[in-house]
Amino acid sequence: MSLGVELHCRCIQTESTAIGRHIEKIELIPANSHCDETEIIATLKKTGQEVCLDPEAPWVKRVIQKILKSRRR
Amino acid sequence: MSLGVELHCRCIQTESTAIGRHIEKIELIPANSHCDETEIIATLKKTGQEVCLDPEAPWVKRVIQKILKSRRR
Repeated sequence: MSLGVELHCRCIQTESTAIGRHIEKIELIPANSHCDETEIIATLKKTGQEVCLDPEAPWVKRVIQKILKSRRR
Repeated sequence: MSLGVELHCRCIQTESTAIGRHIEKIELIPANSHCDETEIIATLKKTGQEVCLDPEAPWVKRVIQKILKSRRR
């Protein structure tokens, strides 16, 4: 699943539930020659499960903005 | 380098040059119990090199916004 360059899109469907709290990390993959759309893949805490997110969903944008601003200090 | 849960921060220093065009994917890792700061790790096209980005740098924010909006269709 995470071997860097993939030869096709990795996401078939996206998660509709807002799962921001359970996200350990998020991968942003810009559209490229292998996939026509930006793909966002979240890895969940605890399970390590990978879940595709919709780049256009407002909650996804909010989660990303929140991560960009988060500091524990 | 990419084994999921790390027990410490992964970034020692961040890239100051705007390298948006060379980015294949970006990982966003929220602050967690192992690292006090959000970490952003870009993987570069061609070389696959991993480079840490500053979450507060304006060009980094712009690159992320651009990825969120990009569609090839």
